[in-house]
Amino acid sequence: MNYQETFSSIHSVLSTLDNTGQTAQYIPELAAVNPQKFGVSLYTIKGELYNFGNAQEKFSIQSIVKVLSLAMAYSRQGAQIWERVGVEPSGTPFNSLVQLEYEQGIPRNPFINAGAIVVSDILVSILQNPEKDFLEFIHEIIGDKSIQYNSSIAESEKSCAYRNLALVHLMKSFGNIENDIDRVMDFYFNMCSICMTTDEVAKVFSMLANKGISPITNTEILSSSSSKRINAIMQTCGFYDESGEFAYRVGLPGKSGVGGGIVAVHPGQYSIAVWSPKLNAKGNSLIGSKFLEAFTTAINASIF
Amino acid sequence: MNYQETFSSIHSVLSTLDNTGQTAQYIPELAAVNPQKFGVSLYTIKGELYNFGNAQEKFSIQSIVKVLSLAMAYSRQGAQIWERVGVEPSGTPFNSLVQLEYEQGIPRNPFINAGAIVVSDILVSILQNPEKDFLEFIHEIIGDKSIQYNSSIAESEKSCAYRNLALVHLMKSFGNIENDIDRVMDFYFNMCSICMTTDEVAKVFSMLANKGISPITNTEILSSSSSKRINAIMQTCGFYDESGEFAYRVGLPGKSGVGGGIVAVHPGQYSIAVWSPKLNAKGNSLIGSKFLEAFTTAINASIF
Amino acid sequence: MNYQETFSSIHSVLSTLDNTGQTAQYIPELAAVNPQKFGVSLYTIKGELYNFGNAQEKFSIQSIVKVLSLAMAYSRQGAQIWERVGVEPSGTPFNSLVQLEYEQGIPRNPFINAGAIVVSDILVSILQNPEKDFLEFIHEIIGDKSIQYNSSIAESEKSCAYRNLALVHLMKSFGNIENDIDRVMDFYFNMCSICMTTDEVAKVFSMLANKGISPITNTEILSSSSSKRINAIMQTCGFYDESGEFAYRVGLPGKSGVGGGIVAVHPGQYSIAVWSPKLNAKGNSLIGSKFLEAFTTAINASIF
Amino acid sequence: MNYQETFSSIHSVLSTLDNTGQTAQYIPELAAVNPQKFGVSLYTIKGELYNFGNAQEKFSIQSIVKVLSLAMAYSRQGAQIWERVGVEPSGTPFNSLVQLEYEQGIPRNPFINAGAIVVSDILVSILQNPEKDFLEFIHEIIGDKSIQYNSSIAESEKSCAYRNLALVHLMKSFGNIENDIDRVMDFYFNMCSICMTTDEVAKVFSMLANKGISPITNTEILSSSSSKRINAIMQTCGFYDESGEFAYRVGLPGKSGVGGGIVAVHPGQYSIAVWSPKLNAKGNSLIGSKFLEAFTTAINASIF
Repeated sequence: MNYQETFSSIHSVLSTLDNTGQTAQYIPELAAVNPQKFGVSLYTIKGELYNFGNAQEKFSIQSIVKVLSLAMAYSRQGAQIWERVGVEPSGTPFNSLVQLEYEQGIPRNPFINAGAIVVSDILVSILQNPEKDFLEFIHEIIGDKSIQYNSSIAESEKSCAYRNLALVHLMKSFGNIENDIDRVMDFYFNMCSICMTTDEVAKVFSMLANKGISPITNTEILSSSSSKRINAIMQTCGFYDESGEFAYRVGLPGKSGVGGGIVAVHPGQYSIAVWSPKLNAKGNSLIGSKFLEAFTTAINASIF
Repeated sequence: MNYQETFSSIHSVLSTLDNTGQTAQYIPELAAVNPQKFGVSLYTIKGELYNFGNAQEKFSIQSIVKVLSLAMAYSRQGAQIWERVGVEPSGTPFNSLVQLEYEQGIPRNPFINAGAIVVSDILVSILQNPEKDFLEFIHEIIGDKSIQYNSSIAESEKSCAYRNLALVHLMKSFGNIENDIDRVMDFYFNMCSICMTTDEVAKVFSMLANKGISPITNTEILSSSSSKRINAIMQTCGFYDESGEFAYRVGLPGKSGVGGGIVAVHPGQYSIAVWSPKLNAKGNSLIGSKFLEAFTTAINASIF
Repeated sequence: MNYQETFSSIHSVLSTLDNTGQTAQYIPELAAVNPQKFGVSLYTIKGELYNFGNAQEKFSIQSIVKVLSLAMAYSRQGAQIWERVGVEPSGTPFNSLVQLEYEQGIPRNPFINAGAIVVSDILVSILQNPEKDFLEFIHEIIGDKSIQYNSSIAESEKSCAYRNLALVHLMKSFGNIENDIDRVMDFYFNMCSICMTTDEVAKVFSMLANKGISPITNTEILSSSSSKRINAIMQTCGFYDESGEFAYRVGLPGKSGVGGGIVAVHPGQYSIAVWSPKLNAKGNSLIGSKFLEAFTTAINASIF
Repeated sequence: MNYQETFSSIHSVLSTLDNTGQTAQYIPELAAVNPQKFGVSLYTIKGELYNFGNAQEKFSIQSIVKVLSLAMAYSRQGAQIWERVGVEPSGTPFNSLVQLEYEQGIPRNPFINAGAIVVSDILVSILQNPEKDFLEFIHEIIGDKSIQYNSSIAESEKSCAYRNLALVHLMKSFGNIENDIDRVMDFYFNMCSICMTTDEVAKVFSMLANKGISPITNTEILSSSSSKRINAIMQTCGFYDESGEFAYRVGLPGKSGVGGGIVAVHPGQYSIAVWSPKLNAKGNSLIGSKFLEAFTTAINASIF
């Protein structure tokens, strides 16, 4: 299939749309990104790469990393992690405290902030050098050691993280955080600060299209069963309280980040990453979502 | 694939389990069903039928019908119906009023009771003879006119429907019910009272595995796009506040009913219906859920 | 004290204010009331009556009646009624379903709609002729048989009572309504439809300023202890989610109605009734609240 | 009146009751208090002191201090403080985050933890030396400089304050905390750590029975109007989600603390402080509440 042509023609159509969103405003590093940037990359399980636009430009992947931290924790601890975080859609915004209070500090799923903080706590407990080991986990998937944390983004987020600090303190009060709060949050913000290109994101996530095996390094990162289960959680929970809408419109499991990135996976076929910095009211990339909807419609292929 | 053998061997294993649930107790017709009943049927898009156990015995499909009423309303009104009901997981039990109050009478999705009542209201508005037309819609899919309402089940449900009446009055107060409440609820209870065998359920739902075209009558019931979108909604919302769990464990879009039935769809391949009357605490068939998990694990095939 | 002069001077000041509220719009009988009407009456435990403005004009007392139905139920059943309704402020609007769902059908207090419906159900259970007996209860307090139900108001309310019907069905589903829903709601709407003048309201409520004994007929309506307890509930719950505000500003136990009436009680001294039909956003009389605040400030007397 | 005799006879009766509660367990200093301790003191606006039991023994007043911090903030800033904290009962437990999230970081009232933290923040903003100035405020009321903070209690509370830290971070995220979180919380915990005897508590609160003027030092601490308003807030909000119950049973404005103290005020007459360390499920002194109910019943005097 000529994916590039499809990319280009969808992009032309979308460029004419009124693009009313805005970049994430709460940290300078994200607010300052040129809102006209647009990149898309598709990587097949056979190792073919298709891309368009600013596909080699690094951006802050933010919450997209939550899939990778979950993958690492799940690969080490297995189903045991579900004692501390659920797999249900929350039906609420990404940073809500309400359900966390009603449900005694157990987050609904690992992709809302509270759940990802619990995963961060799990990794701090089981890893020798969390920051180093986590990067190595990613490097092992992509066969490339260039992916790094961005300390100025991590610092910026940390300085305005009152809501996340409310979440972690609430969970600690319920006994669902084992380690020192500062240590857990440092690691959490470091992970969120990772920068990648859409090429890189598509490559890293291709293992989830390939039953847990990296098509690049041929390493088994996850068992086939674990890979499927992570895709299932992305499908039901990947877009906060727009998860149903994304499943309905795009029809693929996916995950968004407040840096404007979205990744989606077609199991058995490919992964696709798109980047456009302006966000809608729910915090998901405006053009990115529309692009993926148009793409799965154009090639007439979703998992449903 | 030898599906029957797989069915049989999974069933043997499950029979040894402690089966702690109980049948739905709120109406005599459901409470009185023999809890040992078990049937499963799989129907491929090529028209092959595989089954096991009590697969030719009628049971009350209950909420499974909500997929069919949605399919009919969506085929007639298109995306316009989403002005009155959402496509997001609710994160709450099937009959909760909380979100309905916060969200001004707009139900989260068409598979919780409130949403299905809105769909019933839509059908009452657009159909000449709702009861007759809806049965014909089903008959057209399956090419068989034997499927009928069960008036004693409908009457029983109506007589203890205080919670559903609370939902419909609340929505009426917000202006989201157009017709007379009694008319809407009569139709709603009639639809829920339909009885089918697992063979029949698998056959009817095979159109959702086949891009909206009935493999039996070869009629286009839904457009390919509509069929995919209904599958997406089943995936994210089909099991109330166990939807994430079902996606995680089974990996197929599906829908359960309080009569102990569950249907799941593997797009492009088959639909499968299972029936076992005892329910877990969330109101989903206990053995039915375990069976489907074991089945998709055994044949190593899910959409993820 | 020269109450009339105080009334007149406060009224002059308030007349110059911008009066932005509006009359209750949901039933024609309330919407059509002249919004300029204003009446106030004060009745002391010694039997002195002071009034100003339209103090002899009948208006629909609406929720003010909830204090009288509670008084009757409490005088007959005592503390037993607290098994079915609480005495805590709800912190939510008068017709909210949220807490009712979380708290299994037990309303927070007898002055929100759900609680008053439970009280209505209790009276239907214990009275031979609820409508007749309840009027006699009021007649016994005031020594005058002219107070009556207004059937056109009752009918109007009944025809648009979807929210209240949602409440009663929800409580019935939890087992907290004993009688037929239509019977309970008919009696509820009849009670709300009672019309009185501010003179009459002040007289009826004077028994709560006088330890439960009517200063007019000298009959003991309630025990001294019961009278105090009803005043306490009015203080904490009489104004829905403005109860704290009313306690803070006015400093007396009181109860409002959507017909624009407010009654307040200074135990050991007097009761005061005010009527001004325009309501604020919380459904309480705009000018009525301001008048009472100005009055207790002017005479420098509250219970606090 | 012979208050001491009344105290003694009520205490005899209560001693025979099964006292099932337990002392606050979350900090060693409170858990270790002898649960059999009991003290009560009543101080009239004429300066008469009546007491019984361990009335000269210091205990940790905990949340009772919230009335004093509110009094100080209100005396300095007036009604301006209501822009940052409400006066409505919350209908929820003392440390709930739910309403705080729905209501954008504005606590319902100054007596739940979130509200008291806002008051602490206000005092940090306006006072030169918050800790010193606040003690002086109390010393000015009681005419005695012996009342002090207890640093070991303050330290203990700080070390397990995850829930309170969740509250303050959430409010900071909504912009409702001006100062550094650590500074605000240090001051908050210091205030809560103050220890007094029941004699001292009754004396300090007697100014609220006396229109804001200390009967001891004859100083005007609050205006008459401010004093009444603080009493009104105590009445509606002083006991978290048992406020209605306390109004109903005791009939006086009051405030409890997790150290087992309760203070109540009869405006125009006296204040009364009681101390018994075991708490009920809502965190209020079990015997203390029963004692006050029996006391206002025995002397047949409440504000209602």
